[in-house]
Amino acid sequence: MCRWMGWSGQPLVVEELLFKPQHGLVDQSLHSRLGVERTNGDGFGLGWYGAGDGPGVYHSVAPAWGDVNLRELAAHIESPLFLAHVRATTGTAIQQTNCHPFRHGRWLFVHNGLIEGFEAMRRELLLAVEPDLFAGIKGSTDSELLFHLALGYGLEQDPVGAMELAIGLVEATALRYGVENAVQASVGVSDGERLWAFRYSTEGRSRTLFVSADASAVRQLHPENERLQGLRDEDRLVVSEPLADLEGVWQEIPESTVLVVQPGDDVQLPFRPHHEPAQSNGTPARLSG
Amino acid sequence: MCRWMGWSGQPLVVEELLFKPQHGLVDQSLHSRLGVERTNGDGFGLGWYGAGDGPGVYHSVAPAWGDVNLRELAAHIESPLFLAHVRATTGTAIQQTNCHPFRHGRWLFVHNGLIEGFEAMRRELLLAVEPDLFAGIKGSTDSELLFHLALGYGLEQDPVGAMELAIGLVEATALRYGVENAVQASVGVSDGERLWAFRYSTEGRSRTLFVSADASAVRQLHPENERLQGLRDEDRLVVSEPLADLEGVWQEIPESTVLVVQPGDDVQLPFRPHHEPAQSNGTPARLSG
Amino acid sequence: MCRWMGWSGQPLVVEELLFKPQHGLVDQSLHSRLGVERTNGDGFGLGWYGAGDGPGVYHSVAPAWGDVNLRELAAHIESPLFLAHVRATTGTAIQQTNCHPFRHGRWLFVHNGLIEGFEAMRRELLLAVEPDLFAGIKGSTDSELLFHLALGYGLEQDPVGAMELAIGLVEATALRYGVENAVQASVGVSDGERLWAFRYSTEGRSRTLFVSADASAVRQLHPENERLQGLRDEDRLVVSEPLADLEGVWQEIPESTVLVVQPGDDVQLPFRPHHEPAQSNGTPARLSG
Amino acid sequence: MCRWMGWSGQPLVVEELLFKPQHGLVDQSLHSRLGVERTNGDGFGLGWYGAGDGPGVYHSVAPAWGDVNLRELAAHIESPLFLAHVRATTGTAIQQTNCHPFRHGRWLFVHNGLIEGFEAMRRELLLAVEPDLFAGIKGSTDSELLFHLALGYGLEQDPVGAMELAIGLVEATALRYGVENAVQASVGVSDGERLWAFRYSTEGRSRTLFVSADASAVRQLHPENERLQGLRDEDRLVVSEPLADLEGVWQEIPESTVLVVQPGDDVQLPFRPHHEPAQSNGTPARLSG
Repeated sequence: MCRWMGWSGQPLVVEELLFKPQHGLVDQSLHSRLGVERTNGDGFGLGWYGAGDGPGVYHSVAPAWGDVNLRELAAHIESPLFLAHVRATTGTAIQQTNCHPFRHGRWLFVHNGLIEGFEAMRRELLLAVEPDLFAGIKGSTDSELLFHLALGYGLEQDPVGAMELAIGLVEATALRYGVENAVQASVGVSDGERLWAFRYSTEGRSRTLFVSADASAVRQLHPENERLQGLRDEDRLVVSEPLADLEGVWQEIPESTVLVVQPGDDVQLPFRPHHEPAQSNGTPARLSG
Repeated sequence: MCRWMGWSGQPLVVEELLFKPQHGLVDQSLHSRLGVERTNGDGFGLGWYGAGDGPGVYHSVAPAWGDVNLRELAAHIESPLFLAHVRATTGTAIQQTNCHPFRHGRWLFVHNGLIEGFEAMRRELLLAVEPDLFAGIKGSTDSELLFHLALGYGLEQDPVGAMELAIGLVEATALRYGVENAVQASVGVSDGERLWAFRYSTEGRSRTLFVSADASAVRQLHPENERLQGLRDEDRLVVSEPLADLEGVWQEIPESTVLVVQPGDDVQLPFRPHHEPAQSNGTPARLSG
Repeated sequence: MCRWMGWSGQPLVVEELLFKPQHGLVDQSLHSRLGVERTNGDGFGLGWYGAGDGPGVYHSVAPAWGDVNLRELAAHIESPLFLAHVRATTGTAIQQTNCHPFRHGRWLFVHNGLIEGFEAMRRELLLAVEPDLFAGIKGSTDSELLFHLALGYGLEQDPVGAMELAIGLVEATALRYGVENAVQASVGVSDGERLWAFRYSTEGRSRTLFVSADASAVRQLHPENERLQGLRDEDRLVVSEPLADLEGVWQEIPESTVLVVQPGDDVQLPFRPHHEPAQSNGTPARLSG
Repeated sequence: MCRWMGWSGQPLVVEELLFKPQHGLVDQSLHSRLGVERTNGDGFGLGWYGAGDGPGVYHSVAPAWGDVNLRELAAHIESPLFLAHVRATTGTAIQQTNCHPFRHGRWLFVHNGLIEGFEAMRRELLLAVEPDLFAGIKGSTDSELLFHLALGYGLEQDPVGAMELAIGLVEATALRYGVENAVQASVGVSDGERLWAFRYSTEGRSRTLFVSADASAVRQLHPENERLQGLRDEDRLVVSEPLADLEGVWQEIPESTVLVVQPGDDVQLPFRPHHEPAQSNGTPARLSG
C-alpha cells in the first residue's frame, strides 16, 4: 500500500535518508514491516525543491531497490525539502503517470492508502473535480484524483480545510455506493515551505505515520555522519515506518491528526473530514482561483 | 501521427508482414514517408487472434525498431488476423495504457490521426462515454476515448453506424469549442472475423490508407516466399503506407469510406458521421447491451 | 536467487501453469517460500517452442507480478515445452540481456543459483569460453557465461557431460581464487525435445527442485480444468518450488542429480562435475562444431 | 551514430542548453541534420558535476524526446560542467549499461562514432583491458571498451596520450582483422575541471564537432535569456551539431585534433594515434596506478 518519507530542514543529499539509514525507504520497498504489503515494487517517486523553478519530480516504474538512476539522483541531488514514495498498486496501472508525488504548481502530494470501491466511483469523483483542474490529471490513481479534488476545494489556500472537504466528499460518495470505510490516507503535502502530514482513515484504524522527535533524533541515526551531526533544531523527518529501532526517537502522529512542519513551532491539528453538499450548479464549492 | 497495418487471411507468422517486407511497419516507425511525422517512436502495439480466449495484445513503450521482444513475438506468433500500430504521440503520455490496439471483449481498435482540441474537450467527451464502459478506459488518449464512445453507440452490433455517431459527436462537440476540422481518423476495427478500415477526416483531407488489391498483390511482395505464394484469394492487407513500391498492387481507400474485409466479397461503404442530439437524460443514445 | 519452471508435454496455454495454479511462478516472484530471497522482482523470462523457427524468448525487466504483457502472452501462447524464470539479481544489472532463458540455436537455458566470487573470476571465465561462441554472450551474468562454457564443452551433443565439465571448470577456477563452495545450480536445459533438470551445489546443499510425479499429479492441480484432465502420461512439470501443497504429488530431485524428461521413460542420472586441465594451447577441450 | 554536447563554464540549469535552444540536443535526437542517422532514439545519458561526490549519471533507454524524467532533471539540475549524449545503436543492445557517459571515478566519457568490425574483435580487445579495470565494464559497447583501454593506458594522468594509445591499439588490431578504417571517434572526456574534445577517424573523414567561439556566441543564442547574458569569457559549449544557424558562432574542431577546454586559455593539440606493441607479458603497457 505504499510507504513514504518527507524531509524538511537543512539541505541534504537525498541518499542520506533514502539509502544510508538502516531500514530506509528503499529497504522498505523490499521489506516493509508495518505495511499491508511487504513489497512496494510498483514504482517510485521523488519530488524535491532545489535548483530550477518549482519542485522537480522523478518517477520510475522500476522497483526502487533496483533503480540505478534513483541511486544516482539520490547521491547527487541536494534539497532542504523532499518527498519520496514507494508504490504498491491497489489495481491501477504501473506507469509513471501513476507514481507519486503528484505536482500542481509549487505543490507536491504523496499518499499511502486507498479509496475503497474506487473503480465504481471513479467516474463520479472525476466529475467532481474542478473542470479547469481536470486536464492536470494524467494518470488513473485514486491518489491523484484526491489531490485534484482538494485543489478544487482550495488546497493552495487552506490545505487542511481543503483535504477535509475532499475526503469528506469521497466518504459521502462512498456511502451512497454502500462503502462504509472508504478512505485510508496517510498523506504528505508541501508547497516547498511547509510540510503537512495527514493521518486519517474513515474507520479510525489508519496506516502508521511517524515524525522524528527533534533534530537530536536524526543525529542519533548516524552518530558517525558529520553532516547529520550539524542538523538544525527545526529539521524534521516524517516516515511511514521508523527508519531504525532507535527508542524514543519516533513519535507516532495520532489518528485523525495533521502535523504541520513549518518555520517556528510545528503544530498538530485535529483532522475532521466533512461533506458540504454540492451547490445547485452541480459542482462542489470552490475556494481556489 | 502513427502508422498501422491490418492483416486478414491465412495464418501468418507476424514477422512476414511486420519485419520482412521492404518498408514494412517497423521500418515506417523510423522512416515514415507519407505521415505527418517521419518518426513513430512513441510506442508499439500488436493485437492478434489465435491461441487462448479472445485477442492477445502486446503493448510496448520502446520504439518498434529497437524492441527485442517485439522481434521475438513477431517471429513466433502466428495469426490469421492481426493489427499492428506504431505511435507518434500528439501530446499524451508515452505509456502502455496509451498504446494501440485498444481492446474490448473480442474487439480491437487502432487509430491513426487525432482529435483537434482534445485536451479542452476531454472532460466533456469522457462524460459522454456510457457509464458502464467508463472503467474500460485505462489511458489518456483521444483514440481510446473515441473507441469507447463508439462502443456506447453499439460498435459491437453495427460498427459503421456506431463510428458515424461517435465521430459525429466529437465533431459537434468540437464545433461548440470553436474547432472546425476536429477529426483525422484512419481507423482499424476487428472482431476477429471481419476487419473494418475507416478513412475519414472532417476537412476531407485524410491520412493515407491502402488495401492490397488481391492475394496476387501480396504474392508479388515476396515471390521467393513459399508461404506467401500459397495465399488464399481472400487474404487482405490494409496499411497506412504501401509496404513497397509495387505498382498496381495498392489501392487507396477513398475519402469518407469504410472498407469491410470479410468472408466472401469485401465491400466499401460510404462513411458519413452525423450527430444525434443527446436524449433528455443527458446521456447519448445507446445501442449496446 | 531466482525461481524457475519447466513444462514438457501436451501443448498448454502458458497461463495454465504460470498464473492459474495456487502459488504459481508469478506468485513466487512476490512471495517465494523456499528461496533465499522472498522477492524475485528483478526480471522475468519465458522461452517456448511453438510457431516459427526455434524457440521464442520474452525477456522483461519489470517484476513478473506487474507485467501486463506477460499476462497477455501467457494467455495467448500455447506450447508443448516451455521454461519460465523469475530473477533476483545477485549483483549484475537488471536488463533484458541478463534475463533467462538464454538461447543458442534451438537450445534454452535457465539457472537458479550463483557462482560465488564471480566478479573476481569473470574475466578468466570469459576467456575460457570458446572464441567463436564469445559473441553470443550479450549480458553480464554468471548464468549466461556458464551456459556458454557448457556450449563450448559440447552441450549440444552431450548436455550432462558438458555441464559437468563447465561446472568443474568453474569450481577449479574458484579454488585458485580461494572460493570453496563456488557453485549453486538448479539448471534447466532444453532442445525442444527433451528437458534436462540439474540439481547441484559444490557444498552439497542445493536449492530445491521438484518434478511432478506423473500426469495424475498435474490433473489434481486443477480438477475443474478440462484441459488438464486430458493430460498425457508423459506430461511433466519441473519447479523450483511446489505449485501448491498437494501431498504426494511433488518429488524432490536429489542432490547431484540430473533428471532427463524425454519421450519414453524419464531417467535420473548422477551429476558429477569434474575438471579437465586445459590443453597446451590454453583453451579448454572442445567437443562442439 | 549518436550526438553529444559538453558544457564547461558558469553553472547552468541543464535545460538551458538541452531543451531551450533551437535545434538543441534533444531536437537532434529526433531530427539530426549532420549525423549518419537522422534519428538518435536508442537511449540518452547525462553526466554532471555538482552536489554529492563525483559526477552523477542519468541513463535512459527511452528516446530523449519523450523522456519525462529527463525533462524534469534538465529543469532542476544545475552544473558548471556536464556532458549529454543521444544514442543511435550500431548493433549493441539498447540498455542502460550501454548508455553514455561512462564513468570511472571522477571521469566521464562520451563517444560518437564506432569501431568497424567490433563484434569480431571484441574478445581480443576485452583481453587488452587492464585486468583490474575489467570489472568496470558493465555493458557491451565499443565505446565503453575504448574508454577502459584508455584508462589502462593512463587516461587519468595523460588523457591525450592514453587516447592515442587506445585508438592506436584498436587500429592495429583491426588491421590484423583486415579492417582498414577502423575508428570513427568524436569523443568527450572530463574530470570535472577540464573537458577534452577529440575529433578523429582512421580515414581522416570524421564526424562533425564544433565549439562555441567564445562567451558572446552563447549569449547570442538567447539574447532574451538573462542568465546567458551573464556568461563568463571562459564558458564553452562543444557540440556534434551547431545548436542553431548563428553565423560565425561555431568553430569546427579540425580533423585529428583535440581541444582542451580548461581554466585559462584553451588549447588545440594534434591527435595522432599510434601503437606500442604489447610487452612480453601479453598485456599492454600501463601508466595508471
